[in-house]
Amino acid sequence: MCGIFGVYGHPGASELAYLGLYSLQHRGQESAGIVTSNGRKLCSRKGMGLISDVFTNQSLNKLKGYAAIGHVRYSTTGSSLLKNAQPFLANYPEGEIAIAHNGNLTNSKELRDSLQDRGSIFQTTTDSEVIIHLMACTSKKSLKDRLIDALLQIKGAYSLLLITEKEIVAARDPNGFRPLCLGKLDNSFVVASESCAFDIVQAEYIREIEPGEILIINEKGLTSLRPFPKVQRSLCIFEFIYFARPDSKIFGKSVYLTRKRLGEKLYGESPVKSDLIIPIPDSGNYAALGFAQKSKINFELGIIRNHYIGRTFIQPKQEIRDLDVKIKLNPVKELLKGKRITVVEDSIVRGTTSRLRMQSLRQSGAKRIDMRVSCPPHRFPCFYGIDFSTRGELIASSHSIEETRKFIGLDSLSYLSLEGMLDAMPLPRENFCVACFNGKYPIPIHQKISKYSLE
Amino acid sequence: MCGIFGVYGHPGASELAYLGLYSLQHRGQESAGIVTSNGRKLCSRKGMGLISDVFTNQSLNKLKGYAAIGHVRYSTTGSSLLKNAQPFLANYPEGEIAIAHNGNLTNSKELRDSLQDRGSIFQTTTDSEVIIHLMACTSKKSLKDRLIDALLQIKGAYSLLLITEKEIVAARDPNGFRPLCLGKLDNSFVVASESCAFDIVQAEYIREIEPGEILIINEKGLTSLRPFPKVQRSLCIFEFIYFARPDSKIFGKSVYLTRKRLGEKLYGESPVKSDLIIPIPDSGNYAALGFAQKSKINFELGIIRNHYIGRTFIQPKQEIRDLDVKIKLNPVKELLKGKRITVVEDSIVRGTTSRLRMQSLRQSGAKRIDMRVSCPPHRFPCFYGIDFSTRGELIASSHSIEETRKFIGLDSLSYLSLEGMLDAMPLPRENFCVACFNGKYPIPIHQKISKYSLE
Amino acid sequence: MCGIFGVYGHPGASELAYLGLYSLQHRGQESAGIVTSNGRKLCSRKGMGLISDVFTNQSLNKLKGYAAIGHVRYSTTGSSLLKNAQPFLANYPEGEIAIAHNGNLTNSKELRDSLQDRGSIFQTTTDSEVIIHLMACTSKKSLKDRLIDALLQIKGAYSLLLITEKEIVAARDPNGFRPLCLGKLDNSFVVASESCAFDIVQAEYIREIEPGEILIINEKGLTSLRPFPKVQRSLCIFEFIYFARPDSKIFGKSVYLTRKRLGEKLYGESPVKSDLIIPIPDSGNYAALGFAQKSKINFELGIIRNHYIGRTFIQPKQEIRDLDVKIKLNPVKELLKGKRITVVEDSIVRGTTSRLRMQSLRQSGAKRIDMRVSCPPHRFPCFYGIDFSTRGELIASSHSIEETRKFIGLDSLSYLSLEGMLDAMPLPRENFCVACFNGKYPIPIHQKISKYSLE
Amino acid sequence: MCGIFGVYGHPGASELAYLGLYSLQHRGQESAGIVTSNGRKLCSRKGMGLISDVFTNQSLNKLKGYAAIGHVRYSTTGSSLLKNAQPFLANYPEGEIAIAHNGNLTNSKELRDSLQDRGSIFQTTTDSEVIIHLMACTSKKSLKDRLIDALLQIKGAYSLLLITEKEIVAARDPNGFRPLCLGKLDNSFVVASESCAFDIVQAEYIREIEPGEILIINEKGLTSLRPFPKVQRSLCIFEFIYFARPDSKIFGKSVYLTRKRLGEKLYGESPVKSDLIIPIPDSGNYAALGFAQKSKINFELGIIRNHYIGRTFIQPKQEIRDLDVKIKLNPVKELLKGKRITVVEDSIVRGTTSRLRMQSLRQSGAKRIDMRVSCPPHRFPCFYGIDFSTRGELIASSHSIEETRKFIGLDSLSYLSLEGMLDAMPLPRENFCVACFNGKYPIPIHQKISKYSLE
Repeated sequence: MCGIFGVYGHPGASELAYLGLYSLQHRGQESAGIVTSNGRKLCSRKGMGLISDVFTNQSLNKLKGYAAIGHVRYSTTGSSLLKNAQPFLANYPEGEIAIAHNGNLTNSKELRDSLQDRGSIFQTTTDSEVIIHLMACTSKKSLKDRLIDALLQIKGAYSLLLITEKEIVAARDPNGFRPLCLGKLDNSFVVASESCAFDIVQAEYIREIEPGEILIINEKGLTSLRPFPKVQRSLCIFEFIYFARPDSKIFGKSVYLTRKRLGEKLYGESPVKSDLIIPIPDSGNYAALGFAQKSKINFELGIIRNHYIGRTFIQPKQEIRDLDVKIKLNPVKELLKGKRITVVEDSIVRGTTSRLRMQSLRQSGAKRIDMRVSCPPHRFPCFYGIDFSTRGELIASSHSIEETRKFIGLDSLSYLSLEGMLDAMPLPRENFCVACFNGKYPIPIHQKISKYSLE
Repeated sequence: MCGIFGVYGHPGASELAYLGLYSLQHRGQESAGIVTSNGRKLCSRKGMGLISDVFTNQSLNKLKGYAAIGHVRYSTTGSSLLKNAQPFLANYPEGEIAIAHNGNLTNSKELRDSLQDRGSIFQTTTDSEVIIHLMACTSKKSLKDRLIDALLQIKGAYSLLLITEKEIVAARDPNGFRPLCLGKLDNSFVVASESCAFDIVQAEYIREIEPGEILIINEKGLTSLRPFPKVQRSLCIFEFIYFARPDSKIFGKSVYLTRKRLGEKLYGESPVKSDLIIPIPDSGNYAALGFAQKSKINFELGIIRNHYIGRTFIQPKQEIRDLDVKIKLNPVKELLKGKRITVVEDSIVRGTTSRLRMQSLRQSGAKRIDMRVSCPPHRFPCFYGIDFSTRGELIASSHSIEETRKFIGLDSLSYLSLEGMLDAMPLPRENFCVACFNGKYPIPIHQKISKYSLE
Repeated sequence: MCGIFGVYGHPGASELAYLGLYSLQHRGQESAGIVTSNGRKLCSRKGMGLISDVFTNQSLNKLKGYAAIGHVRYSTTGSSLLKNAQPFLANYPEGEIAIAHNGNLTNSKELRDSLQDRGSIFQTTTDSEVIIHLMACTSKKSLKDRLIDALLQIKGAYSLLLITEKEIVAARDPNGFRPLCLGKLDNSFVVASESCAFDIVQAEYIREIEPGEILIINEKGLTSLRPFPKVQRSLCIFEFIYFARPDSKIFGKSVYLTRKRLGEKLYGESPVKSDLIIPIPDSGNYAALGFAQKSKINFELGIIRNHYIGRTFIQPKQEIRDLDVKIKLNPVKELLKGKRITVVEDSIVRGTTSRLRMQSLRQSGAKRIDMRVSCPPHRFPCFYGIDFSTRGELIASSHSIEETRKFIGLDSLSYLSLEGMLDAMPLPRENFCVACFNGKYPIPIHQKISKYSLE
Repeated sequence: MCGIFGVYGHPGASELAYLGLYSLQHRGQESAGIVTSNGRKLCSRKGMGLISDVFTNQSLNKLKGYAAIGHVRYSTTGSSLLKNAQPFLANYPEGEIAIAHNGNLTNSKELRDSLQDRGSIFQTTTDSEVIIHLMACTSKKSLKDRLIDALLQIKGAYSLLLITEKEIVAARDPNGFRPLCLGKLDNSFVVASESCAFDIVQAEYIREIEPGEILIINEKGLTSLRPFPKVQRSLCIFEFIYFARPDSKIFGKSVYLTRKRLGEKLYGESPVKSDLIIPIPDSGNYAALGFAQKSKINFELGIIRNHYIGRTFIQPKQEIRDLDVKIKLNPVKELLKGKRITVVEDSIVRGTTSRLRMQSLRQSGAKRIDMRVSCPPHRFPCFYGIDFSTRGELIASSHSIEETRKFIGLDSLSYLSLEGMLDAMPLPRENFCVACFNGKYPIPIHQKISKYSLE
């Protein structure tokens, strides 16, 4: 996954981009970058790590200009290398251009092959570079026409930001897989993956960038284009379940309230008798609150998160069992001892981390552990930008729920149903992509990938 | 404040110290250090910043040995300089020795002056160096006798760890201001400020180091000395209210359950009618849970904490109002809009941060805001190791509660009473130091300090 | 200027490249880089600064493989940025390829423009990227044919090294402006700008890469191609005078002995009566030795060079006159006092540094100062790779010799004649480019550059 | 060895200290440090490495004040650790004080032991700390009396600089082993190990600090004290032969001219027939010039020094024979081939490096190699500050000259005689310590050291 942020028309553009990316850091921690324009040329800085690692006061000051786009990256395509950090900047026939991309193209390999055949050379393995090449070698001339021409050739999920000397451009694929919204700050415009990035810079939320919309922002203001035939929306439902920040609005709706409704639905479908309800912090907190309020059972923060987790934790040579889990989360023994506990999780991917956490709860003296999960079992990979594969093999694709329960070591395990999940959503059910749950992919997947990943 | 950790008899001593300090990081983020002994000499590494900043795999590997003591520091005495980082290591007549200290001596200035008069030279401005000098210039010979001789001269709060080539020593002042507990890991012993440090290394909690106890740990096992006349205990009550981690046991009791009881008492004393109860995360979470459960009003996590706060956040030149508060905590607008909210705080020191947070809640649309605080107003400085002064001037020492309510911008404000707070404690009330609330200092304060700080 | 080094067929290829570049460091200190091939893919590392700044043991170990090319850069085209560091690596239709380039193309702007028009995007402002683009978009297929096709389109000075998964290729422009030679180390081949790079790795000098030669080195051994029509050689005479290391052979001949002959000729043309001869160290040392031996006057090292000049010398705020000159060179007062001194310089570019140095000699007590320069006055810019412009405006293009003498503050000043210089060379005079002295450019210069730079 | 520099009365004191130490860098490259006084308190910065590594513009700006002392260190006592970097700063009864020391005390162990017995604790293993302790625990009161009291207790070699809030003090041991001189810059005074440090800051050389002199520099000007009984001078002759910079005056005399005279004497004692004379650069340059001028044989710079030697040269895993030697010095093959060569060296310590260099000359084609050394064989360790032991075992203490000749691989080998060396000196022979040549130590050495080091 990735987070993107753009601003046009503000003297502190690079600083706003820094702050916006700071609040989008949960969408990617591998690399970060900002490109600004001062009206005559682009300035770029990128690096590996968190936004606060990559930028110093000094380096931020060098990024002069009234416009900026920025990117935080959690690798989905391309390997983990500095050269793959975004935004991707290049000289093309019309001058300098840079691009920041959230999502995953499904036909990038074919496009790369045909571009190389005509003599294009590649510096990175990112989708972003493919898009710039397509914009460079079209017969079209204007930025707008070049971009449309390029976007008509690409397939898959993309929420994009482009910057040139004179403008920034936001674009979202016709299905609208990934979120992207528009805000206003005094006389400048801001664009971000999630609305929490507006809060930090004191900007006002205006509206979503619509699926299939291209929005050009320059000194003339906003110009909206919709060059694509209309298709059924396929908003990523997992953004609501897990990925987005709870204090964000995405696709125009509150993440917090949606997660609470997931928890309420979950209790309705799979009630339980327990002494207390605890979340796996922090992602399970909100469904757990909904679950607890519906059930009238006490909500407790029975697992404490260490807030000083550094990026460079040293793995000791003296083996300490399950240290990775322990270092982050520690149960409150005195609270849990002798109790029947219901644990609310947002999702189970590989199951191994859940297993370790439950062992830790048992060692703390929990008498009975029931788990409730606020979405259905994940059985299919995502080809539109969420890299479940980095989280390991999907346990639900090879194990029944009963087998999963035994593996994790639970007294009971229930998932929210597909119906229940869709009912809890704040938008009509047909708007969502639920391919990771039911395998129905809204955009057909290139044969090789599906063979490799699905079978 | 500071956190200390020691281990004796384990081949991975430096790694255990690293992990223990990792989980005590909340007790001090200014500097960190570890000293190990391999039986023949001591090895030391110290640095500014978090434990994960100071140590790399390489630097940790160089700290060989079966025994270690470590320290994380939040400056209370001495200024913020590398030379003041602990443990403090020196050559003294019996060989090498290092010391790590949590607490604050009340007669260190007098002791420094008289040591300098006799020709001692000083490298740091810490209490730790004073103690080593006292141990160096006594007529006593053994480590034990030198230490007792030194401790009989110092006054104030101290939980100490010492290391020499052959042993580690733990000591706690007769009043027992600061916590210190003993654990066991296989055949080795561990000592830590809080029990959460045992959980991470899989050690078993055994007991508290008692007030006035000196515990020598070497190849013969444990030797406990109690050279001091018995005095009334003065355990720091603020460790329970705010400072310690909720998943720790301190002074032998659960922090989490104590904080919940503070919240319950608080609702009993100052009930309220609200649509929802929200904590200031994370320190207010547990009192808020107690408060909410007692009140039957819904608990909500209405303010979201950014988990990617780096240490090097860049302050933008473009002024953004209250950015420091915003970058850490963001309200969930859709939840709060039009609601009557009760906010539970653990304590109010200067009041300015609370004020900014309440403004932020109002901007999010809260209709009414009542605040409940889980301790009495802080009106007096602490001379035993908690540096309220670094958190600014105490608002309650100059403002009435009504004035504070107006300053912060609340519809109502209530504090827990001194009685209520002591009732909520898991130990008899006479065990606690509550000087910061009532000005009754269990150890007399040197004139100059009290004049300077109290009036 | 730049230095390049390549090796094929050695298990420690990256280490040999590191050492070779280490001894070519005088040819460029701005950036350094190495690309290796392990037979399946290329590995790259580049950075700003000296080779010893850019590479650590760890980073060198990651550069696996049996073949390597490397580059040290002193910017001539393109600005001083990491992205312009070489070798330049890209994916092109046949796989991965990297290039390292010493020299300067004279038609690179036209080539860039036409490449951009057909849709190529650019990452850098270097000639190297232009060459790779030309290789990518030809209709030819094999590496050999692609390279020939590209080289037939480029004009100017180039000594090149290419690396792909399977081979390295060395090439030199038909005029042969820049040196490039071939060596042998056990069963592997090495290529370097100067022979001093062979000495350090214990390789044996074999021969020059000939002007107009393309040499492919792979598992089949050496394949030499000569696809260009033969033209008159234009070896850069300034390599002999100043640029190359005195312990190198270039163009097949000894630099040391050539410089001594320049000094001998110089005394023959412009004899002098002095108490002692001193060089401006170290570049003037060898001509000064020749001058002194011919004259029978004592040679003295009257100006001492500081060997601990760091790269990060701090300029004090307290102004100290001519500190840059002083920090590097200090006269030996006791030697110079009251003496008539002849100073031998290799060349005068801007004249300002010479002026400061002569003031410093006067302050040391020199009674009379005569200067002899071992080449004619520099009056024309170089478009083939030597950036006189970075050394400032050429004093000889606007001042007569008498005016220059006065400006520098000398009692007499003589330059070696063009004839004398060519006579001192170890190769027939028609082999050399002397455009910087007489303005006769062997390859016509693009109008805009010449307009801008020449008048 | 070490270099020291002090300044009093200049607004850019830290910058002058930086520059002065820059030019004294040859006296120690292990660590560097500066302490300044702004009249109220001292500021310190120290670090490992070269002066240009330790100080940035930012760190230098933080060293405010009108007075400064600085130190560059090549470890002689104490191991190579940051804590041993100088100046050593401490709080003592009269306030803050810092000390920088060049030399070696011969009774420091006894003094440490007795200081520890009275209760002093030690932070470092340096002589400097011993001196500060002695100043702290005397019954005397003023700085002057405390210093005299301390100096009367120490034995051995020391050139010292002290700084307090109000003054700097320079002192030199009664024998005067190490150099120290006084200069003037406008209205401020400067003190340095060698006069080359005055040249860089444009200061004027005034005179030597005399053996046994204490010079206090404060707002009243200079106060000179001579509290010691007069003893025979023992100036270190090796400073003239090897250690000092050739452009310095030490002990009031020119190093350059002295080295030339050593070379002239050497030819007089041991003439040779050769085609050319070459020095081992750069330390052998000056004796070689004297030798060559006397002999009328051509002087040639036949071995070229690489000027880009970084501190972090990576040792390749592929073994390359004698790389350490090769990387620094490379013979000029074309010059040496078939020639009879006389190599002039300043000294031979272990012999192994000379051996490698001579092999390298043979490989370059030298027909015959004669070596002449500009001092007698080194047969005894130095206890006054020159750490021959770091340069390895002294070959002359176990091998005859003939054995040494064979070991190094020479056609002939001659050393300058003790008489010849003393004759070449610019001061009467009884002024010099020549213990490293004849074992006659002017200050008796403590039994243990001599046993350990001499037998």
